[in-house]
Amino acid sequence: MVFYLVGLGLGDVTDITVKGLNIIRRCKKVYFENYTSLLSFGFDQTQLEKFYERPIIEADREFVEQKIEKVLEESLNDDIALLIVGDPFGATTHSDLLIRARQIGVSVKVIHNASILTAVGCTGLQLYNFGSTVSIPFWTDNWEPDSFFEKILINLNNGMHTLCLLDIKIKEQSLENILRKRNEYEKPCFLTCSQAAKQIIKIIERNKRNLVVNADIFVVGIARIGWDDQKIVYATLQQLAFEVDMGLPLHSLIIPSFELHPLEKEMLNSFSFK
Amino acid sequence: MVFYLVGLGLGDVTDITVKGLNIIRRCKKVYFENYTSLLSFGFDQTQLEKFYERPIIEADREFVEQKIEKVLEESLNDDIALLIVGDPFGATTHSDLLIRARQIGVSVKVIHNASILTAVGCTGLQLYNFGSTVSIPFWTDNWEPDSFFEKILINLNNGMHTLCLLDIKIKEQSLENILRKRNEYEKPCFLTCSQAAKQIIKIIERNKRNLVVNADIFVVGIARIGWDDQKIVYATLQQLAFEVDMGLPLHSLIIPSFELHPLEKEMLNSFSFK
Repeated sequence: MVFYLVGLGLGDVTDITVKGLNIIRRCKKVYFENYTSLLSFGFDQTQLEKFYERPIIEADREFVEQKIEKVLEESLNDDIALLIVGDPFGATTHSDLLIRARQIGVSVKVIHNASILTAVGCTGLQLYNFGSTVSIPFWTDNWEPDSFFEKILINLNNGMHTLCLLDIKIKEQSLENILRKRNEYEKPCFLTCSQAAKQIIKIIERNKRNLVVNADIFVVGIARIGWDDQKIVYATLQQLAFEVDMGLPLHSLIIPSFELHPLEKEMLNSFSFK
Repeated sequence: MVFYLVGLGLGDVTDITVKGLNIIRRCKKVYFENYTSLLSFGFDQTQLEKFYERPIIEADREFVEQKIEKVLEESLNDDIALLIVGDPFGATTHSDLLIRARQIGVSVKVIHNASILTAVGCTGLQLYNFGSTVSIPFWTDNWEPDSFFEKILINLNNGMHTLCLLDIKIKEQSLENILRKRNEYEKPCFLTCSQAAKQIIKIIERNKRNLVVNADIFVVGIARIGWDDQKIVYATLQQLAFEVDMGLPLHSLIIPSFELHPLEKEMLNSFSFK
């Protein structure tokens, strides 16, 4: 039997492929990775189960990291699906899972789908020209990591755009709840374009020697790509930090190369903030 | 009314999204970009039209570049779809089309789908770590462009993987047919991993000073990603050029970074040629 990694794409339930839907409907069990993140976008379980015609079993990060072996073993006898928002390889390679599957002799099939990594093409920026992708984490009072900024500079120095994925916190526990061993979780929260831009400005201010990048460079804020209300705004870092409202999550941020093709420039201008 | 850019994903007809299929079925007209490339993979028009429940109108590159204005105008009155293999922004931004649509007041909606740019995650290489994408062209007796190689070196020097898309020739005319003004076209042809590897080895031999890259570096050949018979081979450039048979098109080539994560390394080893 087969263990299927099924990408759900971006947007709503109908963004699954016909092939993916047919597979889900004949699987014995259907797991949903990071299911809480999806539910926070306005889906409810009943709606998903009605569309898939199957009950859904939640598989949070802890589950995927610690109990996936058991699920893989199930697929020695039955077809099993693990649903993943976006493309199965968009956010993580799932290499661990693939290697463990091979070790116990489970055959894995991947149903690809759209990912934010390519959907950003809707900004008009040439996908060929993106350098490595960075993740911008939430800063706290005493933890302000900035190693991602180095990667942005490398991309800029080589004429490449940078897609910055913004941090998501799902099923996090407060220190108090951890100490009291209460199984209560914080509300999911999502780093916004405004917060990310503020953090970048702070990093720039710390590195005064850097003359290439300042708060007046133009960047692209994107929100809810693939949804009906997707939003793209071309503005300065400063504007994105303090003036632009990108609306509901999920947000991402693009630092375009300083060397833009005229068509890229024209497309970006059509998304200008002011 | 709306002009829809509908991604078809990789693989067969059922790789379209449910949303995309629903849209096609209610569109007045359905155009198919680079339709000849798809047909060469074993589809026939009847099969597609039966699945989509709609007649398909061929839109080759010439058509999209020269006659798209007329199609865009049609969508002022009717819903029109343009089908694109992969993601609508995978191979080209279609910025031209989007800008022209805006000029004549046509609203455009994009239905995203899987693209080779993210599907390469199935090799185990971290997608975050890919630098800019290069295209390797067919060489002829007197035209051997090698500017793409510089980009591979930049990516390597910065610890990034490079996806190399290999040239496709569709609806090309022989010089003889052009001169005689005969509307006859050559059979579609596809640059193979073997040919691409040979071209790269030739470039390396020309640049003897370059000690970092030689014919013994390990690369990844990939073929028919997303199809049931997809093939991934981890081998040296030399082996890929002269020993490995990747089978039918479409092929692509990956030059991995020299700095691999242990999990990347383990996944690649599982695809070793020998």
